[in-house]
Amino acid sequence: MNPSGLEALIEALRCLPGIGPKSAQRLAYHLLQRDRSGAQRLGEAVLHALQAVRHCQRCNTFTEGELCERCASPRRDPSLLCVVETPVDMNMMEQTLSYQGLYYVLMGRISPLDGIGARELGLERLLARALDGVVKEVILATNYTNEGEATAHYIAAMLRPRGIDVTRIARGVPVGGELEYVDAGTLAQALRERRACST
Amino acid sequence: MNPSGLEALIEALRCLPGIGPKSAQRLAYHLLQRDRSGAQRLGEAVLHALQAVRHCQRCNTFTEGELCERCASPRRDPSLLCVVETPVDMNMMEQTLSYQGLYYVLMGRISPLDGIGARELGLERLLARALDGVVKEVILATNYTNEGEATAHYIAAMLRPRGIDVTRIARGVPVGGELEYVDAGTLAQALRERRACST
Repeated sequence: MNPSGLEALIEALRCLPGIGPKSAQRLAYHLLQRDRSGAQRLGEAVLHALQAVRHCQRCNTFTEGELCERCASPRRDPSLLCVVETPVDMNMMEQTLSYQGLYYVLMGRISPLDGIGARELGLERLLARALDGVVKEVILATNYTNEGEATAHYIAAMLRPRGIDVTRIARGVPVGGELEYVDAGTLAQALRERRACST
Repeated sequence: MNPSGLEALIEALRCLPGIGPKSAQRLAYHLLQRDRSGAQRLGEAVLHALQAVRHCQRCNTFTEGELCERCASPRRDPSLLCVVETPVDMNMMEQTLSYQGLYYVLMGRISPLDGIGARELGLERLLARALDGVVKEVILATNYTNEGEATAHYIAAMLRPRGIDVTRIARGVPVGGELEYVDAGTLAQALRERRACST
C-alpha cells in the first residue's frame, strides 16, 4: 500500500542486521519525514564508502589506500603479528599503548553455524602473511568466545608446524576485578594459569 | 583510526533513530564486509526515495504522484475524513475493510516534549482540508496515548465550532479480550462508555 520508492527503501533497510519489517518501515518513515538531510548524507555515505573503502593488502583491515597507516609505518615491529577478529578489536589493542607490532584482521571468526569456515574466512591469506620470513611470533587475540577459541585453535594448528611461535593473550581476573563478581570459569582459568610472583 | 569514508558512513548511520556510535560502527562493518550488494541497494534506495516520494496534496500521506491512490479513487466517500497519525495507522484502518471514506495523515502527533505543537504538525492544512465543503464528518483515529489524546482534543476543538461533526473511534475491551487481562483504565472506560445491548 506504500508507493514503490518507499517500499524499495523499506526492503533495502532490511539488509541491516537486527532490522525486521516493522523497524524498517519505522526507519523509512523517519528518514523521509523527519530527517531528509540525514537521509541524503546516509545515501551518499554508503555509496561513497563502497567506492572508496577497501582492504589493506597486508593486514586486511579497512583502508582507502593500498596499505593502512599501520602497515605502512616504519616504526612498527614487523616480527610481531597480532591476529584479531575485527577492526574494533584492533583499535582496542592500540588503545593499550603496549603493542608495537603489526596486525592481521580476520574480519570475522570461524562459525560453522553461520557457514563460515577456514575457507570463507580466507585463512590461507593469513598463512601467506605469517610466512613472509620476517614474522617470528603470531599473537592470537581473538575473543574468548566459543567461536573465537575455535578460530585461535585452528590458526595455531595451522602455523605451529611451520616454525612460527604462536601465543595467545592471557585470560584471567580483569584488572580492578573482585573475585566475588568474576564467573567461576574465569576464576578456574586464572587459578590454572597462575604464575610465580615477581618480588 | 578508521579511513575517512568509513568514518563518514558510521556518522551518517547515526541519523537512524535508536542507533548509537557502537551500533553504527557494527552496521557499517556489516555493510562493507558482509553485504555490499545490500549496501548498494540501500544507498540507491535512500537517494531514489528522497527524489521520488512526496506528500499527497490532499491527505498528506507518502505518494509518488500528486494524489495518492485513495484520494484519486472515485469510489471512496468524500464526506468522511478519518484522521490518523501515520501511514501505518492508515494501513491498519484499511485492513479492517470497514471504512470507505478518505483520510488525513498527520505524520506525527502533538508532543510538546519533542517541540511538536499544532503549528509544527501543520494542522492548518487539516483545517483547510476539512472545510472543503464536502467533508461532513471527521473521525479521529489517533492513538489512545497521551499525545494521541491531546492531538484528538485539539483537532476536535478546532473543527467543532466550524460546524463539522467530529467523532472519536471507540475504546474498550479488545475483541477476544478477557477481562482478567485487560488493564483497569481500559475496563473503567469500557464501563463508562457502555451501550444498550442490541437484541
